[in-house]
Amino acid sequence: MIVLQRPHGIRLFFVLKGSVLQSIAPAILTCTAIALAVTLSRGVLFNWKVTLSAVPFSLIGLALSIFLGFRNSAAFDRYWEARKLWGDLVHRSRSFARQVQSLFHRDAPATPADPHDVRAALIRRTIAFAHALRHQLRRSDAGADVAPLLSSTEAREFAEARLGTHYLLGRIGADVGAAMRAGELDPVIAAHMDDMLSAMAAVAAGCERIKTTPIPFVYTLLLHRTATLFCLLLPFGLVDLIGYMTPVMVAFVSYTFFGLAAVGDEIEDPFGIEPNHLPLETICRTIEIDLLEALGEKTLPAPLAPVNFRLS
Amino acid sequence: MIVLQRPHGIRLFFVLKGSVLQSIAPAILTCTAIALAVTLSRGVLFNWKVTLSAVPFSLIGLALSIFLGFRNSAAFDRYWEARKLWGDLVHRSRSFARQVQSLFHRDAPATPADPHDVRAALIRRTIAFAHALRHQLRRSDAGADVAPLLSSTEAREFAEARLGTHYLLGRIGADVGAAMRAGELDPVIAAHMDDMLSAMAAVAAGCERIKTTPIPFVYTLLLHRTATLFCLLLPFGLVDLIGYMTPVMVAFVSYTFFGLAAVGDEIEDPFGIEPNHLPLETICRTIEIDLLEALGEKTLPAPLAPVNFRLS
Amino acid sequence: MIVLQRPHGIRLFFVLKGSVLQSIAPAILTCTAIALAVTLSRGVLFNWKVTLSAVPFSLIGLALSIFLGFRNSAAFDRYWEARKLWGDLVHRSRSFARQVQSLFHRDAPATPADPHDVRAALIRRTIAFAHALRHQLRRSDAGADVAPLLSSTEAREFAEARLGTHYLLGRIGADVGAAMRAGELDPVIAAHMDDMLSAMAAVAAGCERIKTTPIPFVYTLLLHRTATLFCLLLPFGLVDLIGYMTPVMVAFVSYTFFGLAAVGDEIEDPFGIEPNHLPLETICRTIEIDLLEALGEKTLPAPLAPVNFRLS
Amino acid sequence: MIVLQRPHGIRLFFVLKGSVLQSIAPAILTCTAIALAVTLSRGVLFNWKVTLSAVPFSLIGLALSIFLGFRNSAAFDRYWEARKLWGDLVHRSRSFARQVQSLFHRDAPATPADPHDVRAALIRRTIAFAHALRHQLRRSDAGADVAPLLSSTEAREFAEARLGTHYLLGRIGADVGAAMRAGELDPVIAAHMDDMLSAMAAVAAGCERIKTTPIPFVYTLLLHRTATLFCLLLPFGLVDLIGYMTPVMVAFVSYTFFGLAAVGDEIEDPFGIEPNHLPLETICRTIEIDLLEALGEKTLPAPLAPVNFRLS
Amino acid sequence: MIVLQRPHGIRLFFVLKGSVLQSIAPAILTCTAIALAVTLSRGVLFNWKVTLSAVPFSLIGLALSIFLGFRNSAAFDRYWEARKLWGDLVHRSRSFARQVQSLFHRDAPATPADPHDVRAALIRRTIAFAHALRHQLRRSDAGADVAPLLSSTEAREFAEARLGTHYLLGRIGADVGAAMRAGELDPVIAAHMDDMLSAMAAVAAGCERIKTTPIPFVYTLLLHRTATLFCLLLPFGLVDLIGYMTPVMVAFVSYTFFGLAAVGDEIEDPFGIEPNHLPLETICRTIEIDLLEALGEKTLPAPLAPVNFRLS
Repeated sequence: MIVLQRPHGIRLFFVLKGSVLQSIAPAILTCTAIALAVTLSRGVLFNWKVTLSAVPFSLIGLALSIFLGFRNSAAFDRYWEARKLWGDLVHRSRSFARQVQSLFHRDAPATPADPHDVRAALIRRTIAFAHALRHQLRRSDAGADVAPLLSSTEAREFAEARLGTHYLLGRIGADVGAAMRAGELDPVIAAHMDDMLSAMAAVAAGCERIKTTPIPFVYTLLLHRTATLFCLLLPFGLVDLIGYMTPVMVAFVSYTFFGLAAVGDEIEDPFGIEPNHLPLETICRTIEIDLLEALGEKTLPAPLAPVNFRLS
Repeated sequence: MIVLQRPHGIRLFFVLKGSVLQSIAPAILTCTAIALAVTLSRGVLFNWKVTLSAVPFSLIGLALSIFLGFRNSAAFDRYWEARKLWGDLVHRSRSFARQVQSLFHRDAPATPADPHDVRAALIRRTIAFAHALRHQLRRSDAGADVAPLLSSTEAREFAEARLGTHYLLGRIGADVGAAMRAGELDPVIAAHMDDMLSAMAAVAAGCERIKTTPIPFVYTLLLHRTATLFCLLLPFGLVDLIGYMTPVMVAFVSYTFFGLAAVGDEIEDPFGIEPNHLPLETICRTIEIDLLEALGEKTLPAPLAPVNFRLS
Repeated sequence: MIVLQRPHGIRLFFVLKGSVLQSIAPAILTCTAIALAVTLSRGVLFNWKVTLSAVPFSLIGLALSIFLGFRNSAAFDRYWEARKLWGDLVHRSRSFARQVQSLFHRDAPATPADPHDVRAALIRRTIAFAHALRHQLRRSDAGADVAPLLSSTEAREFAEARLGTHYLLGRIGADVGAAMRAGELDPVIAAHMDDMLSAMAAVAAGCERIKTTPIPFVYTLLLHRTATLFCLLLPFGLVDLIGYMTPVMVAFVSYTFFGLAAVGDEIEDPFGIEPNHLPLETICRTIEIDLLEALGEKTLPAPLAPVNFRLS
Repeated sequence: MIVLQRPHGIRLFFVLKGSVLQSIAPAILTCTAIALAVTLSRGVLFNWKVTLSAVPFSLIGLALSIFLGFRNSAAFDRYWEARKLWGDLVHRSRSFARQVQSLFHRDAPATPADPHDVRAALIRRTIAFAHALRHQLRRSDAGADVAPLLSSTEAREFAEARLGTHYLLGRIGADVGAAMRAGELDPVIAAHMDDMLSAMAAVAAGCERIKTTPIPFVYTLLLHRTATLFCLLLPFGLVDLIGYMTPVMVAFVSYTFFGLAAVGDEIEDPFGIEPNHLPLETICRTIEIDLLEALGEKTLPAPLAPVNFRLS
Repeated sequence: MIVLQRPHGIRLFFVLKGSVLQSIAPAILTCTAIALAVTLSRGVLFNWKVTLSAVPFSLIGLALSIFLGFRNSAAFDRYWEARKLWGDLVHRSRSFARQVQSLFHRDAPATPADPHDVRAALIRRTIAFAHALRHQLRRSDAGADVAPLLSSTEAREFAEARLGTHYLLGRIGADVGAAMRAGELDPVIAAHMDDMLSAMAAVAAGCERIKTTPIPFVYTLLLHRTATLFCLLLPFGLVDLIGYMTPVMVAFVSYTFFGLAAVGDEIEDPFGIEPNHLPLETICRTIEIDLLEALGEKTLPAPLAPVNFRLS
């Protein structure tokens, strides 16, 4: 995620960080080059004057704009829903830790001093869950982040499990159930804490859903086809009207349309590591700090700071 | 569901998979042919010059675009709600299995080794529920997928039941109730687990709703009528302005409008087996794997992989 | 609800079922007639040439289109929310029946054989609730549908009650409370089942809200006034531009605008018995079948089938 | 709330009730007068010909229309959310009354005959809550409606309380707690009923939020400024094109734009007593009737009927 | 938040409070100056006539308007969600206080007279939570507001905690747990009250999410670039058409586009102290008054009143 303030004045046009300019530059240049050729030939293609005017473009431009708007909203909704799911994980984790520390039938909260306290293990696994989910979504290896938070047996089982997040919730659930049977948790409290686990499972399934189900391919195809055709034909429609300004306006129009399309492409899958994706590492660190603090840990890791105006 | 990356450059125009081009080709060709005839006759129909200009088309084009946008959003919302419901089923199933394994008053979780453990039966029926729902939505026979997960009596009763999903939830609920009366589940835990069953019933009813209640027929009618009339009359409005380019632009405009309408038609009923429909088999397999793993099964089926870039 | 497939080709223009054509035909004909008169008089009204062009119409057309789009979305949201509420009722009813059959402290589920089993009465009243709600929304008499499901005392009290749905929930609640006091339901289970009753009350109140609170009258007025003025003045704006095609295009434009407005008018109040309204009878029958099946009834009524492509 | 059917034909233009025409008439007349002056002077202002055309207006008209659309949606969402909150109150009140009548450890439901039954007091205070909320939102005195439902001590304390709704929920909560301590309510039932109180508190806070937080002032300012400037300058853009029809079209355009803006202004704050505001009195009466009926009262007040096509 | 009524007539153009005019004035003036230069030079730049017409601007203007509309909706949704979260906090706080006062196994509610009553401490910490959240979102020091509500030990620990809100919920949770273990709260009531704490944690996490995750930077960049380019090039497109009116219309267009963009910029981050931001202090004061009243405090602080038409 880019954490830059909006630049003003002339600097507005020279920011590249977090812009999509790099990815759409080839397409814009192609269209502009064609527009230049069309301008120089005054719209004559193979000795045949292409008799277009701007009118049909306003018909298509309308449908295209509304479609771009729709696609953008759909992509942004995915982005924002993904962020909400992680925000959900933040407060579910915190609340679960609070419940662990306050609702057991024990006199004092768990402290890092006692390594065998099941409550400390519950909280540590909750931290591990956030890391595991992040790595699962980014298709990376969670071992290094997760292992220090688990016992060695668990770390091995975690590495072997098909779905680390599922394994961790199962382990947490088993300990909650055991505590209930041991009389340390009232059944109603156990059910109450189990609700939090279900909520975390819902977060994981929601992220999985966004990750594995893109906006239907047919939309992407239709949109890019229409936008590309539009920008390729546009010079013929403008050249008789604005002459040598044709390449300039075609560049502008194609920047707007391709830019909007590209923003959608990038935002649509928000769990990646592109500049405009969600800062999952930062959020995981927040959860880690909050839960270690709830456990009474005194030396806490530092929150992540942006590197080169970017949170990863 | 198509899992293709967006093609770039010239290849963008040659992808057929997941495109709606096949279904709209006849309509586009008809309009283009008419446009060609109009161009050749210079807008004269039966010796009578049709005096249209592009202006009224921009008035109608606007309303049509906004209407297409509305219809598209409505169709996509159905698609995405359907996907959410199945995502819901994924995590409800997982959480129910976790509850089964952790919240009974028994010392160890169920294993596949003991075929009479009620908990194994509960988990297997939960898997069966997902398969049954998929077949119910696709109007296919669930027998082959469901029978191996049930006892022979249950499999017979399932086959006889009017609504398989309803039957399965009833059986699961009955066992939860019996376990409660036998003192194996605290009443509060039984109520808590029953909540999950209600949530699964809500998923089934939600999918049924989407399946049985299309977007009102009047919308489809009004939209297709307006779009068709628009594209049929358009050549008369363009021919005096752009001459021989008329068929090209009519083809383009009709591709855009019919394409948008056709995407809506396809996405609207997302449970089918068209290329852009939801990959229900893949999701069912995910549930199957997760729940068998929760049961301690060691040999798990493989996740479904895309066949020819398509998940079924 | 119309359950017709979208017609293709020329048949698209000859479907009347579920179309709004009948209701808007007078308005379209009026506008077309005026357009014809304007065309014949070349825009001269009482010896005075009305000097309009199409430009101001595109300004108003834009605002009108966006407004029509807004109104349509609002109307469709009402339609879809209404359908969701009824979908909710479907699964709440099913889940309540499941709870009744599984969570009482009794060994076997209720069967139709024992007419005095309170559980059978609970399930039958739940069916009656759906019928009562349908009749309440359609302002028709629920007696014939509801009486067979109730004891004769209840049927009499139901007929006397101001709000049948309210009466039924009260009766169900009273029996749940009595069962709790008799020790047949654990308090936590009673509260859990009472939640279902509250959810059914929420469905009833939601439907009532949609029924009694139309989209504010001022919207309807503003929209119809603007659309009507637009179509009445349009011929003057087109006649100098497209001559004898004026009546054709005015007919087309007024079909689009009045059609969109009329769809909204129809969909807005979705509980009626117009072709595009919700098939409440069909849904009630579904609930009836499901709940009788849960009660162990062997002879079930048949699901409703479309009559002349229409579900009522 | 206006409960008029949409007028047809010529009558459409002569309905004033619930229209915003009165409030926007001055602005429309001003613009039309200016348009008339511009038409008569042929666009010459102080001997200087203002050279405008319609083109820039279509650029601004677009942005203005989309902005009007956005503002309208935001205002309508507030209206509809407000209605939902009150619909919520309807069913929460009913469900709370049902719980009161069925879930106490007493053999028979409360009747009006026993004035000291705490359950009757609970139900009466729930009715009072609805009245109190209505008066709070309309900044009127609740005394006359609320006092007959409370004991004299309570009525006095209510009058002294800063927030009547808050006071009433506190009193209801206190009695639920006391019943729990007295063993008349199981703790799980008490928590369950307390949930309803929290839901009523949520309704009150939701209404307060809508009441106290208008759509940001900057929107109103920007919208009205742009719309006014647009309509004031428009005559100069139209006069060379449509001559003497300029005042007519300016009147039409300004009716559309000012009308849309005014509808938003009126709907935005839906708790008032303007014609298009919510019929809170009618809803309160509904709650009163339903709850008195639940209490077994035989003589019920009549539902409110529209006075001059208007529900207050 | 500005609490001004909409000004009418000529005054509409002279309100500065809550307008964004100051922040966009430089951009508007720059564009207008360029337009003036272009007008004076009749579109000739360095002896080269720039041959633009208005047509391409309507193509881009469309996409730009739709994009502005999208961005505005996204920004307003953030604003309104933020307001909803604080509305949530209002009723959660009130309901928690009600539960504290009614659901403990004690005969009388807590009063300010007994400083050692744990219930008074619970309520005071709930007030402190609101203040702490406000200061956290505004990056200011909460000490002065929070300390008087806490014991001196707590105030010190609060000041040392990384996240004050998190600390306070932990302290409240610990006391609820202790009360449960001491038999003063039934476990089901403790779980019920813990739910409220989780809801408050959700409010805090939701606000944090809005605060730390802006609308993706790429949107801001693309929008401001397109709008700026549009307004800079526009004079060339208008000058041949409307001559000396060019600067006037460019000023108008740039006011509309930059104004809409600037409103989005301001509303997007609603927790600040700009005129159009949320009145968090006012809301905190409301919570403070309500909860002190619930505690039986007789002398309550006064609600905040607008200063110079502005609530802070």
